[in-house]
Amino acid sequence: MPGIFWVVPAAGIIAIVFAILLARNVLKRSPGTAKMEEIGGMIFEGAWAFLKRQYSTIGWLSIIVAVAVGTLVGVLGGHRGIEGIDAFGIAWRTGVAFMAGALCSAVSGFIGMIIAVKSNARCAHASQHSLKEAVNVALRGGAVPGFLIVALSLLGVAAIYFAYGGANTPDIAPHLIVGFGFGASFVALFAQLGGGIYTKAADMGADLVGKVEAGIPEDDPRNAAVIADLVGDNVGDCAGRGADLFESTAAENIGAMILGIAIYAITGNVAWILFPLVVRAFGIIASMIGILCVRIRGDENPMKALNRGFYIAIAFSVIGMVATVSIMLSEGTTNWGWLAGAGIVGILTSVVVVFITQYYTEARFRPTRSIAEASKTGPATNIVSGTAVGFETTLATAVVIGLALLLSYWMGTMTGLPGAGAFGTAVATMGMLMTCPFILSEDTFGPITDNANGINEMSGAGEKVRRITDRLDAVGNTTKALTKGYAMVSAGLAAFLLFQAYLDRVAFLRGVDTFNDVNLARVEVFVGALLAVMLVFLFSSWAIRAVSDTASKIIEEVRRQFREFPGILTGETRPDYARAVDITARASLRKMVLPGLLPVVAPVVIGVAFKPFASYDSAMVVAALLMVGTIAGIMMASFMNNSGGAWDNAKKYIEDGQLKDDEGKPIGKGSFTHAAAVVGDTVGDPLKDTAGPSLHVLVKLLSTITLVMCPLFI
Amino acid sequence: MPGIFWVVPAAGIIAIVFAILLARNVLKRSPGTAKMEEIGGMIFEGAWAFLKRQYSTIGWLSIIVAVAVGTLVGVLGGHRGIEGIDAFGIAWRTGVAFMAGALCSAVSGFIGMIIAVKSNARCAHASQHSLKEAVNVALRGGAVPGFLIVALSLLGVAAIYFAYGGANTPDIAPHLIVGFGFGASFVALFAQLGGGIYTKAADMGADLVGKVEAGIPEDDPRNAAVIADLVGDNVGDCAGRGADLFESTAAENIGAMILGIAIYAITGNVAWILFPLVVRAFGIIASMIGILCVRIRGDENPMKALNRGFYIAIAFSVIGMVATVSIMLSEGTTNWGWLAGAGIVGILTSVVVVFITQYYTEARFRPTRSIAEASKTGPATNIVSGTAVGFETTLATAVVIGLALLLSYWMGTMTGLPGAGAFGTAVATMGMLMTCPFILSEDTFGPITDNANGINEMSGAGEKVRRITDRLDAVGNTTKALTKGYAMVSAGLAAFLLFQAYLDRVAFLRGVDTFNDVNLARVEVFVGALLAVMLVFLFSSWAIRAVSDTASKIIEEVRRQFREFPGILTGETRPDYARAVDITARASLRKMVLPGLLPVVAPVVIGVAFKPFASYDSAMVVAALLMVGTIAGIMMASFMNNSGGAWDNAKKYIEDGQLKDDEGKPIGKGSFTHAAAVVGDTVGDPLKDTAGPSLHVLVKLLSTITLVMCPLFI
Repeated sequence: MPGIFWVVPAAGIIAIVFAILLARNVLKRSPGTAKMEEIGGMIFEGAWAFLKRQYSTIGWLSIIVAVAVGTLVGVLGGHRGIEGIDAFGIAWRTGVAFMAGALCSAVSGFIGMIIAVKSNARCAHASQHSLKEAVNVALRGGAVPGFLIVALSLLGVAAIYFAYGGANTPDIAPHLIVGFGFGASFVALFAQLGGGIYTKAADMGADLVGKVEAGIPEDDPRNAAVIADLVGDNVGDCAGRGADLFESTAAENIGAMILGIAIYAITGNVAWILFPLVVRAFGIIASMIGILCVRIRGDENPMKALNRGFYIAIAFSVIGMVATVSIMLSEGTTNWGWLAGAGIVGILTSVVVVFITQYYTEARFRPTRSIAEASKTGPATNIVSGTAVGFETTLATAVVIGLALLLSYWMGTMTGLPGAGAFGTAVATMGMLMTCPFILSEDTFGPITDNANGINEMSGAGEKVRRITDRLDAVGNTTKALTKGYAMVSAGLAAFLLFQAYLDRVAFLRGVDTFNDVNLARVEVFVGALLAVMLVFLFSSWAIRAVSDTASKIIEEVRRQFREFPGILTGETRPDYARAVDITARASLRKMVLPGLLPVVAPVVIGVAFKPFASYDSAMVVAALLMVGTIAGIMMASFMNNSGGAWDNAKKYIEDGQLKDDEGKPIGKGSFTHAAAVVGDTVGDPLKDTAGPSLHVLVKLLSTITLVMCPLFI
Repeated sequence: MPGIFWVVPAAGIIAIVFAILLARNVLKRSPGTAKMEEIGGMIFEGAWAFLKRQYSTIGWLSIIVAVAVGTLVGVLGGHRGIEGIDAFGIAWRTGVAFMAGALCSAVSGFIGMIIAVKSNARCAHASQHSLKEAVNVALRGGAVPGFLIVALSLLGVAAIYFAYGGANTPDIAPHLIVGFGFGASFVALFAQLGGGIYTKAADMGADLVGKVEAGIPEDDPRNAAVIADLVGDNVGDCAGRGADLFESTAAENIGAMILGIAIYAITGNVAWILFPLVVRAFGIIASMIGILCVRIRGDENPMKALNRGFYIAIAFSVIGMVATVSIMLSEGTTNWGWLAGAGIVGILTSVVVVFITQYYTEARFRPTRSIAEASKTGPATNIVSGTAVGFETTLATAVVIGLALLLSYWMGTMTGLPGAGAFGTAVATMGMLMTCPFILSEDTFGPITDNANGINEMSGAGEKVRRITDRLDAVGNTTKALTKGYAMVSAGLAAFLLFQAYLDRVAFLRGVDTFNDVNLARVEVFVGALLAVMLVFLFSSWAIRAVSDTASKIIEEVRRQFREFPGILTGETRPDYARAVDITARASLRKMVLPGLLPVVAPVVIGVAFKPFASYDSAMVVAALLMVGTIAGIMMASFMNNSGGAWDNAKKYIEDGQLKDDEGKPIGKGSFTHAAAVVGDTVGDPLKDTAGPSLHVLVKLLSTITLVMCPLFI
């Protein structure tokens, strides 16, 4: 084992200690006034109840899937390929790896949510002192899950790799741990879907029945769904995205290790397999330095301070990347500089993504303003204009992903090593994901400030304090959008690496040297590609419908409470928040099952069903399903995330009074134009917070499930 | 040449005579009252002015493209492969074929529009007598372009095939006529886009400024944009779809002929190359019998009579298919029955499509009703619900296309002939397109009845007459939706055949026996696929934005007229219809250029740009662009066409008073729910009538341009 490998456990442990210190710092602060504490407590209770229920559903599903996967892979694939391990050995190892991945992913979601919820009221309270204090609480609160999750992923993959014999058989062990990645994505999909359905159903339901029907303002305490709405921000954005990025880092590490096997086989240097883990460790350190450097100067826009920290993290990532490549991958080739270059391409891609997302979703730029402008002629033109903007964003997304792939592949081939082209794209993906803990911290920053704002509103804080959390909330919207762009583009980069890993694994299981042919000109492969695109549309349809079905349940409940307790509207009776929370939780968990099972079941069914038709085996059909499904999923997610963000900010732009009428007077809240913009915002919600983020997970789930299940298709 | 080939000229001539007889029958009828005649005249003038302007723009573009294509293909591809023809010979043949295709396509559009416009007022007048008479006029009027267009396509392809030496070198001539298909699709794309932008911009503009701002009813004569709206139905639906289906039949004939070459090379039987033309000829005859059998019985729903005629056409198509296969393709194989089976699969596919489209867009079924139901909570839930329905339709579309391809391919292979699998899918496509003249007649039926309804409204016809044309209008909406489903699924079937033809042509130009590998596992091919999906989204974005940009011009103009001439609203002053028509025409033609050039320029740029990167040639990258772009285009079109249709009919469902509130009372026009449904209808308009139908053409344009340009990529 290369000496530098010690940074992996070291960085993992440092990150955990760092997170614990931050958590203690946040928790020792005051949770605010009694009113704030009460509201914070209700949010915590609601979120806790939802997660308990959600994870018990997911737990049952996971156990069933673990057994099924182990059995299928063991029975149908166990007679092939792996020396010294019998069918039963493969079965239990795959099943256990799956459960380990699922468990780690679940723990990541839990941690993210709990710390975020605990930070809400503290951030609201800190905002009564100063903007700087409030930013500190929100960022530190966000960093706790950010670092814990990435550390857990790093240590988890390393541990299971060595537990499955990585020290003695470094070229076999990565094949045994693929179940870990699948377990992680399985939980992530349900966490993201369930949380996403919950949060947007609560949001839509609260708005429709409160603002539209009863005519009371947003976050008004008389609305029974308002706590459910606040709970939703935590369970959707924190728990969901935490699980999502946990499985991203885990699955991509495993995929890159599989790619490294081919070069290990030639060079005999195990560093090619361990490289991804070491780079990730340096990424944690670079991100930590970045977070520590975030300091607000005077009254500046907090986004600027966050961006400074991000650029510092980027700079240290570049240093870490060059150092790791020069130490680990320089043996046997004098051209290691090309691989470092590929890594830098990946790191820079994350910077480009930040700019693109800002361009498409901030009201400073043309796209969002054009949507605000279109609202003047009503909701229909608002929707049409937002759809056009969303579709347009696929151009930038596709070009960035395409260029990064081509460049890093080309740089890989310049090393002269066989198979290093694909490894170049893997290095780029690793590079892009180095700043993952930083980005994840920013992401959780979003719901914390959002909730702090809601708590201030509900506890009747003064105008000055509201203005601070309003500003923070706007920053949080931007950071949430950035994370989605980051998650999406990294999924695109990772996709290529993951299905190269799939192809390598097919070759391994077939017992041949290479398998590198996915021929779209075959009719059954073409049909596989067709079904892949369809799958993306169908999944989106079901995810969106789940939100509106759940929202209708909430609307019924709030209406019932208004009807049966007339004192609620006059402020005399407290609404039954807990019941609304409970109804939302039950409905959203029921509704997550159908869309969640689609990407799990479809590849297996298609792979098995096409086997008799394809005159060879169906590995190629499944590969096409995976590749084209990934492409379609990323393009669709780009549309959904960005159009949703743009609709949201177009509404905010009008609310800020920045849109002017023909005579130059500001068109503000309550106007016809504003009402039209609210329609766009509401339509965008399930797209950007349910279907879009779930599509990232779907894309990676397709990769991990096909990696695990590929013995079935051969 | 096989003796049966005489049916090709015979059917072509019979179809033309049939169309002339029908046209005389319609034109000799009375154009109605003076008021009706006046309105009909204004529509004719507006449509004529638009088409003249549109086709002069398209004409200039075509000449430039013809020269460019001829030069590029001649200079860069002329040194390869074709015996006895030098670079200049290839250049002029390609250029001339392009212009011939472009011209025929343009003529098809013109004919469709003129007869349809002439039938409008006559149909309105006939509706004063009886439903039966009105149906007769609309159907006969629709059948004129239906049969003329298909006859033109058949005779055009046959003529240029023989003009380019088909009698002596049957295996070379199909390669020389690919320019014909490209010319046809080039014009079709601009016709569909320009017409689609015009019609929906006029519709949106008229509605927004009339219904929403001024509060006057639809089709009210005080609205200056109302004539533009009526003109739009003709130039968008008739001229656009006419050009679309012309190029479908032409391009698919040429593609199937290229596929036949491979089997001709083995069997020496030219029937394999000529088969597509003969089947098309039998399709014309079968469709003619079907049209002649449409008879309304008593007061029945006209849709029933149309469906009876369709089933008769289907039955005769099956007979024609079996006869043609048994006569032409039975030599040398005893298994010709399998090919006939593939043809029947195609024919039955068209029946299945009819059912699926009806299920998703008619208010009798769940999807449309669920949208109407969702309108109760406002425009946002209406949009979300319609989007979910639209996404869901991709399931049925993909499964139908996938099954038809797999089945017909498998049947092809069962003949035991090499390469007959792909030929099987070609036979299925030919089978599906046999009923094309019938479907096209139904399609033009739509705008004729729509306009007749508008003319009755504007000329103040009585309630009883209105009810007849209202009923006809609803039937027209269904037939229009059916045609779109038919065009979409046939494009999907044809896609596979067209890129098999592309691969055969690459092999031919490379001078090798076969080329049958499009390997998605190569990074540059994967990026090609990524760009393909992006292209579909970007094109949709630009097409949609073109509609709203144009609509805003119309809104400005109508507002100006209302402001400057207050007498318009009181009915004292006649609005300046011509000016509104002219402004719409100019704006929509300007806006069609950008989206129209995208699919023409992008494949060439990508093909050339990837050449230095790909270590082989870029033929594979372009193939991936073509195949994955086709898949994404069809799925996106399925979403757009069906969601648009469902939104439209959900609104109609509410207007008919069929949606009930909690107390069982009907929720009708003017309610909050109805307003929400109108938003959905308006959003759906540019999707279903501009972007969606243009995507069919885009898909086929990608095929024809890559077929023509493939010498550039090698």
